[in-house]
Amino acid sequence: MIKVIIWNEFVHEVENNEVKSIYPDGIHNCIKDFLSNDKSLTIETATLREKENGISEERLKDCKVLIWWGHKAHDEVLDSTVNLIHRRVLEGMGLIVLHSGHHSKIFKRLMGTNCNLTWREYGEKERIWICNPGHPICEGLDPYFELEMEEMYGEPFQVPSPYETLFTSWFEGGETFRSGLLYKRGNGNIFYFRPGHEVHPTYHDKNIQKVILNAVHFVKETSKNIWQDIHSPTPKSNRPDPIENITKKGFSVGHPTEK
Amino acid sequence: MIKVIIWNEFVHEVENNEVKSIYPDGIHNCIKDFLSNDKSLTIETATLREKENGISEERLKDCKVLIWWGHKAHDEVLDSTVNLIHRRVLEGMGLIVLHSGHHSKIFKRLMGTNCNLTWREYGEKERIWICNPGHPICEGLDPYFELEMEEMYGEPFQVPSPYETLFTSWFEGGETFRSGLLYKRGNGNIFYFRPGHEVHPTYHDKNIQKVILNAVHFVKETSKNIWQDIHSPTPKSNRPDPIENITKKGFSVGHPTEK
Amino acid sequence: MIKVIIWNEFVHEVENNEVKSIYPDGIHNCIKDFLSNDKSLTIETATLREKENGISEERLKDCKVLIWWGHKAHDEVLDSTVNLIHRRVLEGMGLIVLHSGHHSKIFKRLMGTNCNLTWREYGEKERIWICNPGHPICEGLDPYFELEMEEMYGEPFQVPSPYETLFTSWFEGGETFRSGLLYKRGNGNIFYFRPGHEVHPTYHDKNIQKVILNAVHFVKETSKNIWQDIHSPTPKSNRPDPIENITKKGFSVGHPTEK
Amino acid sequence: MIKVIIWNEFVHEVENNEVKSIYPDGIHNCIKDFLSNDKSLTIETATLREKENGISEERLKDCKVLIWWGHKAHDEVLDSTVNLIHRRVLEGMGLIVLHSGHHSKIFKRLMGTNCNLTWREYGEKERIWICNPGHPICEGLDPYFELEMEEMYGEPFQVPSPYETLFTSWFEGGETFRSGLLYKRGNGNIFYFRPGHEVHPTYHDKNIQKVILNAVHFVKETSKNIWQDIHSPTPKSNRPDPIENITKKGFSVGHPTEK
Repeated sequence: MIKVIIWNEFVHEVENNEVKSIYPDGIHNCIKDFLSNDKSLTIETATLREKENGISEERLKDCKVLIWWGHKAHDEVLDSTVNLIHRRVLEGMGLIVLHSGHHSKIFKRLMGTNCNLTWREYGEKERIWICNPGHPICEGLDPYFELEMEEMYGEPFQVPSPYETLFTSWFEGGETFRSGLLYKRGNGNIFYFRPGHEVHPTYHDKNIQKVILNAVHFVKETSKNIWQDIHSPTPKSNRPDPIENITKKGFSVGHPTEK
Repeated sequence: MIKVIIWNEFVHEVENNEVKSIYPDGIHNCIKDFLSNDKSLTIETATLREKENGISEERLKDCKVLIWWGHKAHDEVLDSTVNLIHRRVLEGMGLIVLHSGHHSKIFKRLMGTNCNLTWREYGEKERIWICNPGHPICEGLDPYFELEMEEMYGEPFQVPSPYETLFTSWFEGGETFRSGLLYKRGNGNIFYFRPGHEVHPTYHDKNIQKVILNAVHFVKETSKNIWQDIHSPTPKSNRPDPIENITKKGFSVGHPTEK
Repeated sequence: MIKVIIWNEFVHEVENNEVKSIYPDGIHNCIKDFLSNDKSLTIETATLREKENGISEERLKDCKVLIWWGHKAHDEVLDSTVNLIHRRVLEGMGLIVLHSGHHSKIFKRLMGTNCNLTWREYGEKERIWICNPGHPICEGLDPYFELEMEEMYGEPFQVPSPYETLFTSWFEGGETFRSGLLYKRGNGNIFYFRPGHEVHPTYHDKNIQKVILNAVHFVKETSKNIWQDIHSPTPKSNRPDPIENITKKGFSVGHPTEK
Repeated sequence: MIKVIIWNEFVHEVENNEVKSIYPDGIHNCIKDFLSNDKSLTIETATLREKENGISEERLKDCKVLIWWGHKAHDEVLDSTVNLIHRRVLEGMGLIVLHSGHHSKIFKRLMGTNCNLTWREYGEKERIWICNPGHPICEGLDPYFELEMEEMYGEPFQVPSPYETLFTSWFEGGETFRSGLLYKRGNGNIFYFRPGHEVHPTYHDKNIQKVILNAVHFVKETSKNIWQDIHSPTPKSNRPDPIENITKKGFSVGHPTEK
């Protein structure tokens, strides 16, 4: 079984009646519902205002994929939560970042850039083109698909060059955007997928659901290996004895982390 | 004129007599000395314990290359300093990170990984091989060069895949290491160069000096363009009006940064 | 002075009166005209049906940038010509591939893929968005610019992931396309730029002219170093003696290229 | 079942008694033997001097991984064979290129560079370091392992920057080399793995066997999707009708491949 955790900010759905009408149980439960058809997955959810943001070292330990949706409360996510997730992504846990998650702490930390973009909340049509129809994340899709209403995201999207660009979007108002990007950091596969504004029924769309399910299987952690030192630098294993028979030369100051 | 700032932690040279004997005026002034032969450069220095780490928005504004050496006091670097440098690198300022700077706040932020490695302070021989003799950073070098005494750094070096690997090192004790790596984040070129342990006279070595001078010219900022929004999100320019004549659909919640 | 060679197939302009009316002296001379305002450039041209396609080892030797336009006669380009260009790109010569040059022998050889795409010749509007306004190739451009009539190129564009995506296009008929891609192969910078269908006055457009001039300066060869062995494997330099004092073990068959 | 084809030049083993004594049934059968312990694999072999190099469109159709060993007879491989393999790699078939396969037609075509390196046939010790112990290809390995006798390969290795560098080697004579490189071209994962000189018993080594088995599982084709147009450009699907209701403007020359 592949354990998946869907994390949702879950603020808009509580505070705003129109969002609530689209996602009565929250975006996380909508995603959980359509993923549940895949019986190889064990699906859990977590939200911002649970204790420790619903994330603990224990819960992440055997989590193979984390899905992240956040928008208006990125700053409320605890740094300790971000640290736990960051560590697991470097170890190999897959991460799917949705829509406004481009400005989440975890995505910005992994990218190393500000992840800015332009936007317009106008409920306009988005047409999403497939750049690589042979990629596992694109299985079952036509050359393009459309969402009738979405928030516009436009270039420049300030992220590092991805390993691969899988989707590009066009918006009714005129803009284009690189809307499906694959990265690898440490041993974790990271997939950024643009659509999903909270005031539109995007996660009820069949094509969007296909992409997210495909992505779960593509980014999921598979390696049984973990580099021990990712967790906490253990001076001994990080300071190997020489293999060759050599004599120490010069003097030394000691390494700061050894103190 | 190309303005270069050499930043040095400048703690070992003050606290340790043996380091002081090698770099009486600090590593920064040793680097300044050999770079000064290039009359196209205006060279300044900055150190950790100056006010605001010697770094201000004003000083960085027209700085084309920042060179960074730090080791035992990474945590003392102010987050505000890291923010200023991060912004300028994304804008296009070149960054050269030396030796133990692999664990500096700015390098880790730009990489998005923990940047761990293995090490041994044994004063052993390092032999540095050139992976791309045709690269501007490698001009004037033989197929390899050696340093008689250096700290060992070994794999695994936990960084994202670089744009290019320019050097690989072998150490007398047996290890190998990818010791010259090129990255681009935003519009800034970043060069990580491994050698430079404070207890050895590495920055007095002619080949090391060649690499650093070559690197200054390779990573230096050249574009006259700056994307205005890197600085501070200016809602208006980030929220363009539609180009096409479209009608707003659905409802909206407003973007959190607009509040 | 920076030597630039503009290579043009120069077949459409001869055979087709409408193309001729737009580019009476050929696309190459149109490009030469607008580049000529930059007095740091020495500009030459070459065309398919000149002797040896107008390309010789001697002409390429000090050429810093080659611009390539071809469409209907890719197969007529001599393999010996492709070999000469390939070698110079690996050495460091910049290459700008325009429009239908995506199917040229030299571009396909450098990419290692088939470089297929979808297309439609419908004279439709193309809107070109800037993905990185801070990049030197994008200097002087607005967030987007438009061409009133162009051939449509659509995804999937079957090329390897680029070092950077600088432009994405939208077409009036509905498609999007990654229309400005940067690569590095060997020491040569390669820029693919989509627009430029022969039946439209694209190279008379001021924005297109800016991009091509900017690109010339960005991709131009700068290194003085050349790895000698790129040219012809010289067994001796490729078979170094051991640095360490070791004794030969086992037996050997000799390397095939030594025979 | 995962179908794997092991392709071997199979010339040294026939012509040279010492090579024959190490690999009496050929390198391909040695590799087949140790892979056969994995019952999820169906393993076939093919060699240069079989009809059409033992490769046909039919055999490749359901092949998920091709392993390639060649050395002295690269030029004898038919271009039609290379075309078939190239197409399948772009579609998604995994490719593992061993040792002197760096100069094979298929590897050079996929890389787009000359793939040169330096070498010395001296039967010297090779120590192979793991750059990413958490990668599936590195499962079950210690931080390094050694081969008592191998041919030396040294930098510069003239290939494009890989998606990831998994191994670096050191040789007794003093050189270092990036000896395990991952690429993606089209939808095919490509793994270059350096060791395997024919006069040494490298493929009898347990660590080498682990790497190759791990690599088979990592690079194997998994997508059910194939972009139809990779095969043969089918003008109709490549020339879509406009989605939007637009009117054709200007004139057209027709696309050369339509004729």
